[in-house]
Amino acid sequence: VIGLYDSGFGGLTVLRRVRDALPDRDLHYFGDSGRAPYGGRDVHTILDFAEQAVEHLVGRGCRLVVVACNTVSCVALRHLQHRYAGPGSDVRVLGVTIPGAESAVRATRGHVGVLATARTVASHTYVTEIHKLDPSVRVTQLAAPLLAPIVEEGWEDTEIARLAVDRYLDALGPVDTLLLGCTHYPLLMDQFAGRGPTVVDPAPYLAERLVEWLERHPQFDPPGTGALSFSCSGDPERFARLGSRFLGAALPEVHLVAEVGGRLLPGDPDAAPVGQVVRGGR
Amino acid sequence: VIGLYDSGFGGLTVLRRVRDALPDRDLHYFGDSGRAPYGGRDVHTILDFAEQAVEHLVGRGCRLVVVACNTVSCVALRHLQHRYAGPGSDVRVLGVTIPGAESAVRATRGHVGVLATARTVASHTYVTEIHKLDPSVRVTQLAAPLLAPIVEEGWEDTEIARLAVDRYLDALGPVDTLLLGCTHYPLLMDQFAGRGPTVVDPAPYLAERLVEWLERHPQFDPPGTGALSFSCSGDPERFARLGSRFLGAALPEVHLVAEVGGRLLPGDPDAAPVGQVVRGGR
Repeated sequence: VIGLYDSGFGGLTVLRRVRDALPDRDLHYFGDSGRAPYGGRDVHTILDFAEQAVEHLVGRGCRLVVVACNTVSCVALRHLQHRYAGPGSDVRVLGVTIPGAESAVRATRGHVGVLATARTVASHTYVTEIHKLDPSVRVTQLAAPLLAPIVEEGWEDTEIARLAVDRYLDALGPVDTLLLGCTHYPLLMDQFAGRGPTVVDPAPYLAERLVEWLERHPQFDPPGTGALSFSCSGDPERFARLGSRFLGAALPEVHLVAEVGGRLLPGDPDAAPVGQVVRGGR
Repeated sequence: VIGLYDSGFGGLTVLRRVRDALPDRDLHYFGDSGRAPYGGRDVHTILDFAEQAVEHLVGRGCRLVVVACNTVSCVALRHLQHRYAGPGSDVRVLGVTIPGAESAVRATRGHVGVLATARTVASHTYVTEIHKLDPSVRVTQLAAPLLAPIVEEGWEDTEIARLAVDRYLDALGPVDTLLLGCTHYPLLMDQFAGRGPTVVDPAPYLAERLVEWLERHPQFDPPGTGALSFSCSGDPERFARLGSRFLGAALPEVHLVAEVGGRLLPGDPDAAPVGQVVRGGR
């Protein structure tokens, strides 16, 4: 079973492409929806959360983990590879940023714009990865903090979405290629299309690269029955409801992985408390 | 010195009112901007963060702490009072929700609408507090996740803000009074005004109540020189820049309180790392 990890729902747009490209593989998706969004968090917090998520997926039997979240890939991928996929390990961790950079460099005529979370922009990882491939490509990044909430509200087809995309594209300036640096943004594809820049969603290219990678490294995941399974750290009902829009299909049962004392704790604790919560001393 | 605590910048709209009402008091504001927004987090995480913030303020000499954040007040205030302000303690912790509920009940003719974060809505605390004061008042709550990012982008006076407010007010239905249940929303007052409902910002009433409270409990804060000081857990430069719009005035120096290993750590660590961060094993 291949594990996909995202801070919330967005990575389901990646899961969709991976399922299309690898219909016979078993896939398990973990969305850390109870702790999303990661964007405003300290990098060390993101590293902690990402370690816990990878350990959760490895504990479920995944030998191949795909970090579908741009923010996590940008700040934590190297750490995760160092910690879990070093020499002698039978686990591999792949991210979304190198496929993203490659697909942008393939598409561009010289000037790539990147829209992403503030944390992804601050990491400069997309700039670094694009310049590794072609130092002559100009890269302009911009944080677009309204776009993910617009998608989560289901307002992709509203005037609000159109105006927000207008503002962000105006602020990016005359780029010829637009890299969607957050897994929420493919749901805004209708708003981005026809505005001038070639729009690049890294997910289809990531799925293509994953097929090639598995041909070279078949030992990390045997073909299965195409089963999909899901876990999340937030409200599973909400996850299934919102997630279906990102996946483009209904989700089966979503298993709850609660966060207790800052750690992910598989199990099925009481429902989330309502109102004032008073804890005993410690 | 009176301590004010918020998850980020929003509470500066409360500080502004407290300073106006109590011009001779020393005020220290702590914004947990490096861990904001709290909205999507687990309640136990919010309790942890709130404990750390109160301990930080008490450590700076505050005997009176005002929780200016609606989300924290709604889920954690009773816990904070139980833990820090119990019998025999010389510390008091006050929140924004009871003044908010009181000002809404004073204003309404029977139907209050509350716009707030998803976490505040889920807590039902505003419904509970309003019904304690008058069980006959109808309360309709709605999470408005776009409004805080619109304010943080500085887009309060745009068509995007107008359309988003339209949608949220339409979804609230025919309320006669609108309670602004998030400290960001007073910056959207021009958008909310003239739409029908009487708009209630809890902050001026909270400041009035604080003046009365200090008259009854002078031992918790002696008059000072009207000094303002600031600390935050995120980027202090960004805090000062964004914060000035919420305060309505330039901020003096902002002291950094870093989060390390999940705890607030007063000090002055290295600047935030850029790009991939690889930590050693543990």
